[in-house]
Amino acid sequence: MQFHHHGYVSGDPRVQPAAGAGLDRPAELPDEVDVLIVGSGPAGMLLAAQMSQFPDVVTRVVGRRPGRLALGQADGIQPRSVETFQAFGFAERIVAEAYNIGWMNFWGPDPADPGHIVRTTRTEDYGLKISEFPHLIVNQARVLDYFAEAAAQGPARIVPDWGVEFLGLQVHESGEHPVEVRLRHVAEDADGTEARAGRERTVRATFVAGCDGARSGVRTAIGCRHVGVASAHAWGVMDVLVNTDFPDWRIKCAITSAAGNILHIPREGGYLSRMYIDLGAVAEDDNHRVRSTPIEEIVRRANAILSPYSIDVRQVAWHSVYEVGHRVTDRFDDVLPGVARTPRVFLTGDACHTHSAKAGQGMNVSMQDGFNLGWKLGAVLTGRSPETLLATYAAERRPVAQELIDFDREWSSLMARRPEEITDPQDLATHYLATAEFPSGFMTRYPPSSIVGSDEHQHLATGYPVGMRFKSAQVVRVCDGNAVHLGHHARADGRWRIYAFPDSGGSALAQWAAWLATPSSPLARFTPADADVDAVLDVKVIYQCDYAEVDLPAVPPVFLPRTGPLGLMDWEKVYAAGPNAWTDVDIFTERGLSREGVVVVVRPDQYVAHVLPLTATAELADFLGRSLLPQR
Amino acid sequence: MQFHHHGYVSGDPRVQPAAGAGLDRPAELPDEVDVLIVGSGPAGMLLAAQMSQFPDVVTRVVGRRPGRLALGQADGIQPRSVETFQAFGFAERIVAEAYNIGWMNFWGPDPADPGHIVRTTRTEDYGLKISEFPHLIVNQARVLDYFAEAAAQGPARIVPDWGVEFLGLQVHESGEHPVEVRLRHVAEDADGTEARAGRERTVRATFVAGCDGARSGVRTAIGCRHVGVASAHAWGVMDVLVNTDFPDWRIKCAITSAAGNILHIPREGGYLSRMYIDLGAVAEDDNHRVRSTPIEEIVRRANAILSPYSIDVRQVAWHSVYEVGHRVTDRFDDVLPGVARTPRVFLTGDACHTHSAKAGQGMNVSMQDGFNLGWKLGAVLTGRSPETLLATYAAERRPVAQELIDFDREWSSLMARRPEEITDPQDLATHYLATAEFPSGFMTRYPPSSIVGSDEHQHLATGYPVGMRFKSAQVVRVCDGNAVHLGHHARADGRWRIYAFPDSGGSALAQWAAWLATPSSPLARFTPADADVDAVLDVKVIYQCDYAEVDLPAVPPVFLPRTGPLGLMDWEKVYAAGPNAWTDVDIFTERGLSREGVVVVVRPDQYVAHVLPLTATAELADFLGRSLLPQR
Repeated sequence: MQFHHHGYVSGDPRVQPAAGAGLDRPAELPDEVDVLIVGSGPAGMLLAAQMSQFPDVVTRVVGRRPGRLALGQADGIQPRSVETFQAFGFAERIVAEAYNIGWMNFWGPDPADPGHIVRTTRTEDYGLKISEFPHLIVNQARVLDYFAEAAAQGPARIVPDWGVEFLGLQVHESGEHPVEVRLRHVAEDADGTEARAGRERTVRATFVAGCDGARSGVRTAIGCRHVGVASAHAWGVMDVLVNTDFPDWRIKCAITSAAGNILHIPREGGYLSRMYIDLGAVAEDDNHRVRSTPIEEIVRRANAILSPYSIDVRQVAWHSVYEVGHRVTDRFDDVLPGVARTPRVFLTGDACHTHSAKAGQGMNVSMQDGFNLGWKLGAVLTGRSPETLLATYAAERRPVAQELIDFDREWSSLMARRPEEITDPQDLATHYLATAEFPSGFMTRYPPSSIVGSDEHQHLATGYPVGMRFKSAQVVRVCDGNAVHLGHHARADGRWRIYAFPDSGGSALAQWAAWLATPSSPLARFTPADADVDAVLDVKVIYQCDYAEVDLPAVPPVFLPRTGPLGLMDWEKVYAAGPNAWTDVDIFTERGLSREGVVVVVRPDQYVAHVLPLTATAELADFLGRSLLPQR
Repeated sequence: MQFHHHGYVSGDPRVQPAAGAGLDRPAELPDEVDVLIVGSGPAGMLLAAQMSQFPDVVTRVVGRRPGRLALGQADGIQPRSVETFQAFGFAERIVAEAYNIGWMNFWGPDPADPGHIVRTTRTEDYGLKISEFPHLIVNQARVLDYFAEAAAQGPARIVPDWGVEFLGLQVHESGEHPVEVRLRHVAEDADGTEARAGRERTVRATFVAGCDGARSGVRTAIGCRHVGVASAHAWGVMDVLVNTDFPDWRIKCAITSAAGNILHIPREGGYLSRMYIDLGAVAEDDNHRVRSTPIEEIVRRANAILSPYSIDVRQVAWHSVYEVGHRVTDRFDDVLPGVARTPRVFLTGDACHTHSAKAGQGMNVSMQDGFNLGWKLGAVLTGRSPETLLATYAAERRPVAQELIDFDREWSSLMARRPEEITDPQDLATHYLATAEFPSGFMTRYPPSSIVGSDEHQHLATGYPVGMRFKSAQVVRVCDGNAVHLGHHARADGRWRIYAFPDSGGSALAQWAAWLATPSSPLARFTPADADVDAVLDVKVIYQCDYAEVDLPAVPPVFLPRTGPLGLMDWEKVYAAGPNAWTDVDIFTERGLSREGVVVVVRPDQYVAHVLPLTATAELADFLGRSLLPQR
């Protein structure tokens, strides 16, 4: 965590100095905004936290609820999401309060007594094997709390406008704020100073993000169709505090029995668990009657499935019934096929993909929607990038949503099988393990585009597949000899990262650094004259040698920039590969990096954008020029 | 982190439900209190956080400042202190924002050019080798912020009464609140609603903790003498933001040069460092004139010492000059030698031991003073323990203070040597490493007393020396198969911990557990009838076998108690030794535990109180009966 560089900070360093729109932010929703976020779920709140890092952009978030979410909804957190939380500054805190999935156990009918279940398999969870972060379960409400904190503590000081309902919008052809949005106050706002319930408002926005869930009004307003099928299978879900003799109450389990199926998810705090209980096939003429299944019936089913074990429910914290649907929206923005114009309205999260809850994916994919969109909006609205950048949102995220739906459909079907349909009792566990990287969030691979390069030089950095998320590894910070995670230095601040891994001789690095220091380099061209030299491109070097052999005075100055109002040298861009006393890892070995040197370019949302040799300076300049605008 | 057991918690689980005195806490300082803490430094604020876990006790903290500390003062945090922070719930957060000491480097005169310094040694810091927590540097203000948060979020909802000055006290011979304390409001309180500056107040307290620093008024009021000498050596200290070519600006260093000495301490945030700069011997007739040394002179000295390197100071965050003193107070409470009565007034921290800042000890030892005292006050005031327990505070902490002074005197002298006094350039580094456990805070060993047993059975648990702090180790939580730190489950909640390590056969454990479940066992006798069964003694078991082999339904019920208003089973008292998929550690091997089984008793302040065989039930009952009162 770096601070004090704008002068001594006495209080919580997580509270950044207010700037721009955050300096005198009106309590009332203004008539004109740059970004209007509709909805305060995982995508919307991540987006709010991201936009708070762009204080020159006026962003507001409207939510229909009178205040923070209190209960229920999603709880599965992929390692990929925890990586994202790290970039927003709250990973260590949420890990400390969440349930950490160490194992997933599988239960099936006892061959000797098919009316009883027995444990068939214990399976290590995949989380810590493919990320430095675990796989967690924690209530969505807490995730939203942390994003709300990040939004409020960022320079733009963004807090949601609660109790505001979306009514409709119209995209005009011109004007600085071409999207006309109709809203209605549905309740008092949090401060309750004005009776305004029922009052309608019009807000003009430059861009609108529809983060308003499965029944998205924004989706309807831009004429999208939510395409797919509702399955004829219903599930009850309950968050319950119980006493039980079921020994795996605190372990994630898939339970298959003659009486039905349960997906069992322990929750944060050591007592609470969530159960997804199979309510069976739904008749075609049911007309959603299944949704009124009483909690007593859900508990009764759970006990029937768990036999010979049982649960004694002491408190129901939340429960619901849903029918599994798998739908993807035909468009993720307001641009019709074949039309070439800047998208003005975007859909994220459940507004554009809905599916079962049982693979624990929804909240995670929604957050990555927000992460993909946020930096692009920030870059365009601050003049760093052309508006064409915004077309990449739908192009990148719609295929991810389709993959998710396909994965979830398969997983849901496997989970809903009856015992007689199961030929191999291990196949659910086998499927779970074989596909672990997908539900962890690590299989997303964006195709080549203006912001993803070709894989021509992939062999120089085999551990950083172009288009996939940058996987952190331990390195040694030269200035203090501490082992740190290279990726953790990158915060969700809208900046691109350029990691230079020198050649063993050092001459290629020296030439590359000298080139970067010239006035015609991307560093100079794409950075506003009045901004810090690392405001757009954050350039770091990771030497091959032991940290103690790096002679700091001989390191090219481009890696030791002087920034901030005091012009202080930044010591934290110069690293060395381990091992040393504090780490066993040599990042060159661990990530398959060429000893001849390589440059890895990473997007603001942590995806590897390009891999290039140190000598490919023209290609680097060209690549960055595809999505960044010259500033001088 | 365990929660939801009193019903579903929607918000931050770190905020505990208010209870007792925390339910309707008066904003004004009341006329009568159980505990009055005078001073809001590290000892006082730890004590406040601890007392907040005793909501049936009325505790107030008075501080002279108008509000939180903003700047300066101590910054060294031993691993022992981070262990303590863990028990108060904020270790992971303060680690994330602190400077982590990975190395200590030593610089001396260049033999080829004695006017210039050269790096002579790099030394790994000891922190992570002797604790699972690192050795940190972070401003005292942040430590106080976190303790203030813990105090405010605990059940008693304790917040300091700011702007209140201590004037004097008188200890009366009888009465429920025998200490009469005179106070004066020196400034508006934080809410500024009432003009009361200058107004005097009398508060009657049952006990007073003097945490009011080196010029303690409480110390004076109880007639203690602060014994020792001021050395004739002065040091300047400054927290500065600089640009420099000194390559170790971000590494802790001891620098010895012909021009004087520097102890260099990098600080949190990546830019700031603290320098202790030798101002040389002070003339006998100086009369503290050295204390007015201007900052420019301190910077000039620093540059002279650093030659050929230099610092360009861009901002001075804080600076001061002090003369090294080494003093210990003759008594740590108000009981005169030879008198046998309950102490009513206690001294902690700088109020009873002052010394140089350069071993980074002061704040740490002060906090352990508060930790030692807090649970004892809570136990006595809630009727769990006899008042005789309070005499152990001075008996235990005064020798620790004396050891600290002796250590610091030696370290300060070594640091202040001139180059010509140094025969072996490595000896400072050698001394630093050889004594590492002391400055880490791990050498404290309390002698046998009513709360520390004999070492008769020490061979059964060689890794848990009786009287020393309980060193955590990884184990596997049986209910969920996660690797966790056994010691981290213990929070600073005033409870005793009893860890049962079963014999390999299990019959001794079965008998021990059966005994503990009888109505005459310490568990029944010392726990109030209306309290949770684990309210006084928190009993856990750590099996030798793999966690998957532990049959939870066969575990003795005493390890699976039902607590809280819902009577929910607590799953987190049953552990197994590793290794498993998530840890390499077998606690039996790691801590030298007998495979025949052993019971380890740990005090509320994390010190090992006793080591006993499973068969020694009478001895265990007797030992606990020395400091706990029967409740039924």
